[in-house]
Parts: sequence; C-alpha cells; structure tokens
Amino acid sequence: MDNDLVTTRSAPGRVYLVGAGPGDPELLTVKAQRLLAHADVILHDDLVPAEILALAGPQANIVSVGKRYGAHGATQSEINARMIESVRLGLEVVRLKGGDPGIFGRLAEEIDALEAAGVPFEVVPGITAGIAAAASLGVSLTDRRKATRIVVITNHQARAKPGAASTDWRGLIRDDSTLLIYMPGRDFSSLRDELLAAGCATDMPAAIVSRASVPGQRHRFTIVGELDKLPRMDSPAVLLIGASLGRAHRRAKAGDSAVLGLDEAELILSSL
Amino acid sequence: MDNDLVTTRSAPGRVYLVGAGPGDPELLTVKAQRLLAHADVILHDDLVPAEILALAGPQANIVSVGKRYGAHGATQSEINARMIESVRLGLEVVRLKGGDPGIFGRLAEEIDALEAAGVPFEVVPGITAGIAAAASLGVSLTDRRKATRIVVITNHQARAKPGAASTDWRGLIRDDSTLLIYMPGRDFSSLRDELLAAGCATDMPAAIVSRASVPGQRHRFTIVGELDKLPRMDSPAVLLIGASLGRAHRRAKAGDSAVLGLDEAELILSSL
Repeated sequence: MDNDLVTTRSAPGRVYLVGAGPGDPELLTVKAQRLLAHADVILHDDLVPAEILALAGPQANIVSVGKRYGAHGATQSEINARMIESVRLGLEVVRLKGGDPGIFGRLAEEIDALEAAGVPFEVVPGITAGIAAAASLGVSLTDRRKATRIVVITNHQARAKPGAASTDWRGLIRDDSTLLIYMPGRDFSSLRDELLAAGCATDMPAAIVSRASVPGQRHRFTIVGELDKLPRMDSPAVLLIGASLGRAHRRAKAGDSAVLGLDEAELILSSL
Repeated sequence: MDNDLVTTRSAPGRVYLVGAGPGDPELLTVKAQRLLAHADVILHDDLVPAEILALAGPQANIVSVGKRYGAHGATQSEINARMIESVRLGLEVVRLKGGDPGIFGRLAEEIDALEAAGVPFEVVPGITAGIAAAASLGVSLTDRRKATRIVVITNHQARAKPGAASTDWRGLIRDDSTLLIYMPGRDFSSLRDELLAAGCATDMPAAIVSRASVPGQRHRFTIVGELDKLPRMDSPAVLLIGASLGRAHRRAKAGDSAVLGLDEAELILSSL
C-alpha cells in the first residue's frame, strides 16, 4: 500500500486547512504563520486581510477564492478542484479561512472533496470570531457564578436561503448561557422577538462586535429587549448575549475605557 | 484623575491575560509568543507545558500558580494579589492560562480583582481545547448540511462540588448540534444515561480527545449508547458528540490514518 501511494502520487503534497483568526496578524497561530511562509499555493477567503497575506513567501501563488466564488455550489467545486490539482503537482497548499476553519466555514465540504480524492490534509485551528470578540470586550465567556455554557449559532434570518426554518431557541435561552450569534445580519427586530418569545429576559445584556481585532473594530451595547435599536454594523460581526456581558455594560456606562484598553470612541451606547 | 494615576502608579504596567492554547507551542498566537518574550512576570497554570514557558525572555520571573493553588478561594486571592503587586511595581505581567482564558478558565474572577484594583489589563484569546480537538480529528464542528450549532459545556459530574445540580440537557440534544464537553471526568455511564434520557440517539457519534496537540495525544471513538465503555483518558480531555464526528468514525473504522495525518496507534476503537 505504501508503494501504491508512491507510484500514484509522486512527491505528494498536502493541503493545510488553516484558520487565519479574526484578522489581526498577531492573532494568527505560530503554525499558520510558518505555513504561510512556506506554502506554494494559498487559496484564501475574502475575509483574510492583506497584512496576513503579506506573510506569504515569495514563491507563493496567492489566489482569492472569496465572495465572487462560494455563493453557489459549482464554485465550491472550483475551490476543491484547485486544491486537488495543486497538491497533485506536489505543491504545498494552504487553504486559508477566516477565524477557525471548523466554525461556519464550509470546512466539511472541502474535507469531503479531499477525502474523495485521497488527498492528505491537516486542519490547523484558528481564533474564531466569537472568542476574539469576547477578548476585545474584556469579558469571560464563562463564569462559574453565572455562565456555565456557551452556544455558538448563526441567526437564520441572516442566511441566504429565503424560507429557511426559524432558529429553535428552546433550551438555549437560560440565564446561565452565553450566546455567540455569528452572521447576525441586520434584522435585529425579529431576533429580539424570537429571543423574548423563547423566554429571554428583556434586560439580558447584549453586545455586538464588528471587525474584532482589526482597525475599524466597533463595539455597541444594548439589552435583548432593545436589540432592534442596534445600528447597522460592518461585517464580519458577532452578537454576544448573556449575563457574562454585564461587566462590559457596566464599563461602557461608566465611560471606563482605560481598564479595557479600548478606544473610547468605540464604546457607543445605544440604549443604556 | 490623570494626575492621580501618575502619583499612585508610576510607570504603570499592565496585565495580559493570555491564552496559551492547547499545548503545542505552534498553536500559540504570535501575540502570545511576543508577550512571553517580553514579560517581566509570568504567572502560569499547570496545564502550560515547559516548551511554552521556554519562550519566556531571560528577564522573566516564571511562577506556577497551578493545581497546588486554585482549588479553593483563598489562593485565587493569592494569584490576584500577585498580579496586582507586580503590575504596581511597573512590571509587565502575563497571566498565562491553558486554552482560551475566557472558556472555563476563571477569567471572570481575575478580571473582577483587576478592575477592583484599577489595574489595566488586556485579554489575549487562545485556541480552546474543543476547537483544537476537532482540528486534530480532521472534522468540522459545523456542517451546514447537518450541524448548525455548537454547545460548549462541562460535565457536572466531573466538577468538584458534590451535590451540584445535574446538567440540564434539554434543548441541547438535537441531531444538528455538536456538543463539546470539557472536563468530561470519568463517569461516562451516568453521562450516557443523561444524554439518552434527554433524547440523544443511541448511535450518535462521540469522540474523546486527550491531550490535544501535544505528545501523548489520544483519540478514541464510540457512540453515545456505549459511552460507558470508554477507557480512562489522561487530562485534559474533551468529549465531542454529534453527527459532525461521523467522518472521524468512518475513517477510524477504515483504518484510514493517512488522510488524517494521525499516528495510526492513536485510533483506538472501543466499540465500532
């Protein structure tokens, strides 16, 4: 079987499915940085900023496979085909995805394609947006006194498919849960109604973090009952809900930006 | 108030509350690596391996505040006091925690103390154990075809307090959820019963990853109905449950370790 591998794939390469983190080049892992420096081919999403792509070595062929692609199935096939072709040429391929590749990143489809083609791969984790957002807020996602579970989910209304089933919030809405809502979209009014209908307290703290860790990062604070008053925020954004956000609220109210190390201008209160 | 700050804290330092990731020094962030090289004082948990502490600069005073401390409240106070004293001496302090500091890391208590003392701090996110475990398994935690939410939780039976309330699994057990159970403990028999009682399918795939990303990493696979057959695993360990683990099961069954890049010996099947 070893011989088989040698004859069918001479000098076989490997695909590294790598998390680029939230955007700050310093929030890359050391491993991602090293792989970028050595890769022959880098296939990256739109969310990956130029400062991170600049870490590629001079030999790298850097290819954007972002928004223009990926919106429908056929072009996911193009990404897959590109990975497989490159690795069969013996090249070291980095497939670079925003955040962590395994969280709302279509990693499963790409692994399916690589496995079907018999191409070796490795997943390199990254800092996911929700965790970066919490760090930027100076809060802990868990707190053994009041937040014992984290739920990571998207807001279905923000998804492309019209008529998609509503999110089933039952069991998720508890005083001791922290919700990380990825791709929160802009229709916070329906989201508020759904959360309240599922039993969420009106005054449960909420924060939205736009562009966590990069220039242009913005934090806004509200409560679930007033989610509809949140202004439009740039993508990518994460909405955080739960008692563990309470301390960020208190600081924002007090105008206390020194402790947090945030630019004061970023603390914009919508309703506190 | 600025004058006050100057007189009471000359050359004030700052506390960096830093995630060390799962253990592999290459899974540190670039920022964590830089902070370790420059810190005057490093207060670290037991889970942080020597290879990571070796990244400290020659000026660093490296202090273990791990297991020996932290088991009861008084010694958390000692950690807090040490951070605050050091920063008031104008030192740059790194509080280094395994994984991500905001996920089951008692970050909230330490932030409380720093805020009460008026000490500036910054949270630097890290790769949390559950995300590292999924990457090591070569699986995606979400899959838009079958896994649309992630729940991060601990197994209450593994917690110190006897008589602690049972985990309320209602709403968490769904075919489209991936569960990441931190500190899973060893009583998988009760856990199996609770999950089945909450409606979990008997044949739902499960995997346990012990010591993700470091030498001695181990993966074992089972189904929820046979969780009780899992052997003892070294800490730290994460138990992953959900349809998204199915591909790791299929690979393990097929003896296909080439795709995953895992040492074959690490794929130990308990019941498949």
